[in-house]
Amino acid sequence: MPVGTQATVKAMLPRDLHDLGCQILLCNTYHLYLRPGHELIRELGGLHRFMAWDGPILTDSGGYQIFSLGAMRKISEEGARFQSHLDGSSHMLTPEKAMEIQEALGSDIAMVLDECIPPDASREYVRDSTERTIRWAERCLGARRKPGQLMFGIIQGGLFDDLRQSCIDAMSALPFEGFAVGGLGVGEGEDQLYRIGSLTVARLPAERPRYLMGVGRPQDILKAVRAGFDMFDCVIPTRNARNGTLFTWQGKINIKRAEFARDSGPLDESCGCYCCRNFSRAYLRHLYVAGEILSSQLNTLHNLYFYHRLMDKCREAIRVGQPELWPRLAEPDGDAQAQTTQEDS
Amino acid sequence: MPVGTQATVKAMLPRDLHDLGCQILLCNTYHLYLRPGHELIRELGGLHRFMAWDGPILTDSGGYQIFSLGAMRKISEEGARFQSHLDGSSHMLTPEKAMEIQEALGSDIAMVLDECIPPDASREYVRDSTERTIRWAERCLGARRKPGQLMFGIIQGGLFDDLRQSCIDAMSALPFEGFAVGGLGVGEGEDQLYRIGSLTVARLPAERPRYLMGVGRPQDILKAVRAGFDMFDCVIPTRNARNGTLFTWQGKINIKRAEFARDSGPLDESCGCYCCRNFSRAYLRHLYVAGEILSSQLNTLHNLYFYHRLMDKCREAIRVGQPELWPRLAEPDGDAQAQTTQEDS
Repeated sequence: MPVGTQATVKAMLPRDLHDLGCQILLCNTYHLYLRPGHELIRELGGLHRFMAWDGPILTDSGGYQIFSLGAMRKISEEGARFQSHLDGSSHMLTPEKAMEIQEALGSDIAMVLDECIPPDASREYVRDSTERTIRWAERCLGARRKPGQLMFGIIQGGLFDDLRQSCIDAMSALPFEGFAVGGLGVGEGEDQLYRIGSLTVARLPAERPRYLMGVGRPQDILKAVRAGFDMFDCVIPTRNARNGTLFTWQGKINIKRAEFARDSGPLDESCGCYCCRNFSRAYLRHLYVAGEILSSQLNTLHNLYFYHRLMDKCREAIRVGQPELWPRLAEPDGDAQAQTTQEDS
Repeated sequence: MPVGTQATVKAMLPRDLHDLGCQILLCNTYHLYLRPGHELIRELGGLHRFMAWDGPILTDSGGYQIFSLGAMRKISEEGARFQSHLDGSSHMLTPEKAMEIQEALGSDIAMVLDECIPPDASREYVRDSTERTIRWAERCLGARRKPGQLMFGIIQGGLFDDLRQSCIDAMSALPFEGFAVGGLGVGEGEDQLYRIGSLTVARLPAERPRYLMGVGRPQDILKAVRAGFDMFDCVIPTRNARNGTLFTWQGKINIKRAEFARDSGPLDESCGCYCCRNFSRAYLRHLYVAGEILSSQLNTLHNLYFYHRLMDKCREAIRVGQPELWPRLAEPDGDAQAQTTQEDS
């Protein structure tokens, strides 16, 4: 899922998202609640109509953004009180409010309110927080009003196997249409990401979608698909694009490097996207160096195309069932892991 | 002609320019000479291939940008010495150099090097400068090497009828494929623009294209077409778009105004562009207020669509020959005149 934080995937027309095979978008409840406001979006016919996207939309609960606010938020049993990053105004996000906002937005899939726990939290903190996340999930279900809107539960439990297991037990007993795994890709390291990710996904009901939130790099997605995950969101393809970092089947390219100044070849010989079919690396570098908007447009178009072909290849490998069909990445890239479920606003 | 200063019409994919009926672009020699360099563009197969635009391209001579540099340039019979706005490096632009650069870029129409005279210049200055512009035009013709590249002469002469006339006499005796009128739309006022524009265009050879440089506002273009001009360039549609000022057949709209916050209607009911067919004024306002790149994309797409339909209507009125078919604008807009032949870089 490309990330459309403020009701737009940055630098992409909806028709271009459609053309590259995009099936579903993620939008951020926190941002849309603050600006332009969920009531306004409801009044205008809902998020799909507002942003002219007729495919499915998943909305997060706003929790992740709020927990990232640090000193600007305070958690209680009731919910999370926070100050707007836009104007400092004070707001309360309860499980019921998170549902109300997502219903007003009219997303196809709503996420429960959860607390995303930092990887260095103590066992005691993780236990208490995860138990509260389960109580919040039950309250979200109780607040559910909109027929047809799916709802996903979220598994927390930090890096503790038994706490993950008890969260899975509690959540999978609830009537959610799918499950997400949270609290990963937040700096816990690759080993923990793969270990907790694998053991969690293996214990979730396989007949319902399993979604690994905020992850991430192509190699992480590939491993997670093989472990059993079905859904992902991440700003890496779009944010990297705007920073000039481009994905190719031969590895990542930093388009601003001087070596590309006279390079008449396409970004990726084997890529069929509009950018690779029409422009040289030299031109892409020129646009980046000159600070042109078209740089963000073409780079984003390419990176999203790359990610969508990566997922196509995964689907094909699963369908055919031949291990040699799994996509091969040039090299693991060196990016730090980062749960990056929102764009800058 | 939309303006593609740095080898891109800001925020527009070439395929979207094509789709809205764009027939020809203007690119800025001064900017491309400094970055990425005309030699590099030649090496990469020329400007068309570099920016993936297969329609015609007109390049200016770079003169206008240099004369706008003020204290950073010095004019002599040989040419104009100037300092780069990017790094302060010193360069000399002669008529021969202006041709060499435009030939390297490979534009379809090259413009001669001229001096764009400020409207408050004395008669003596205008006379001397215009005579030099004529000598420079002859040197440009002498430096011409590239078969198939058209070349346009430029009429100067300030606000003095007799100096305009003698410039027309000298220029139209030279084998140019078209003529441009310069030194208008630079703050001389509407009356002078229309007066000088009309008398100049009426005396130019009607069988060759007549191009009014850097003008401008819809009402100016409409008057100039009726006076006899065939070609225009201006950044108004694109720059205004990025500033949130949008053209409609009911007048100009400043999309950031609070009155549009809940406006579910399209920008212009009668417009068939992608933006008006899909998005509300409320959404366009949200994108602008949130600082989203998509704001520039959709606004530019709309404004260029508006300008192209304006030109379509002019062509149709000329073809049919019925005065009542001339497009009607809602009201003259209050924008200051400004010869704006380059985008910000």
